[in-house]
Amino acid sequence: MPFTLHPQLASDCLPVGDLPLCRVLLMNNRHFPWLILVPRREGLRELFDLSDADYPVVMQEVRDTAQAFAAMTTAHKINVAMLGNMVPQLHIHIIARFTHDAAWPAPVWNTGIKTEPYAEKVFAGKAAEIRSQIGLG
Amino acid sequence: MPFTLHPQLASDCLPVGDLPLCRVLLMNNRHFPWLILVPRREGLRELFDLSDADYPVVMQEVRDTAQAFAAMTTAHKINVAMLGNMVPQLHIHIIARFTHDAAWPAPVWNTGIKTEPYAEKVFAGKAAEIRSQIGLG
Repeated sequence: MPFTLHPQLASDCLPVGDLPLCRVLLMNNRHFPWLILVPRREGLRELFDLSDADYPVVMQEVRDTAQAFAAMTTAHKINVAMLGNMVPQLHIHIIARFTHDAAWPAPVWNTGIKTEPYAEKVFAGKAAEIRSQIGLG
Repeated sequence: MPFTLHPQLASDCLPVGDLPLCRVLLMNNRHFPWLILVPRREGLRELFDLSDADYPVVMQEVRDTAQAFAAMTTAHKINVAMLGNMVPQLHIHIIARFTHDAAWPAPVWNTGIKTEPYAEKVFAGKAAEIRSQIGLG
C-alpha cells in the first residue's frame, strides 16, 4: 500500500530523507532541534500497530537516530515521544533539549512559544548535516 | 550493580511489580491511568544508554505493556514518552488518554491540573488488575 504523509506533518515539517523504514522530518521551528520519524506504512496509529517484523526495525532506527542527533547537537537531554493526540498517523518525536532552551525543563508541546521557521539556506545546511550524521549522506 | 529507584519516582508513583527487565510503577494521580517502566539497571539516562542486549527487551516490554494497558483501559490513545528533563533516571511513560480526560488533547505534563492520589483500596484493585493484564498475575 502506498505511504502518504499526514498533511499536518507535511505542513509543520521539512523533509530530510528516508531511513530503510522511517521517513525523517525536521520540525520547522528554530527554537528546538526536533526530528520526527514516520514509519512508511499505511494505517498505523499506535506504536503497537507496527507488525512484529517492523517494530524492532523502527525502534532501532529511533535509537540510532536519537544517538546520532545527541552527538550532532551536543544536547543536554534527548526527549523521545509518541503522542498522536492531534495527528493520528504514527510518528515519533526525537527532540534535542538544552538547559538554555525556550521551554526547559518543560516538554516542548503547548508552551505558547511562537514557532520560528528556518530560513531556507539554514535548513538546507541542517538537512545535509543530519543526513550525513544519521547515515543518509 | 544493585538497582535503586530514583527517590522522585518512588515518591510520585506506587509500585505495581517487576517485568523481566523493567520495574512497573503507577503514577499516583487519578486524573490519568499512567504507568512508568524503569529498566532495573544502574546509571541509565538516555534511551540509547541501554546495552545492545537490553534495548530490544525493554522496547518489547514497552510494546506489550502499552498494548495490554490500552485494552484494559479502553483508551482512545496511548502516549509513550521518554523525557527525563526533571528526573535523570531513564523511565518510560505509558499513559492512557481519553477525549474526556482533564488535559486532552494536550500532553499530561505541566497542565497545572492538581494531582489526585488514589485511595489505598482503589490502588490495590488497580495494581492487581494491571498485574493480571500485563502478565505479572
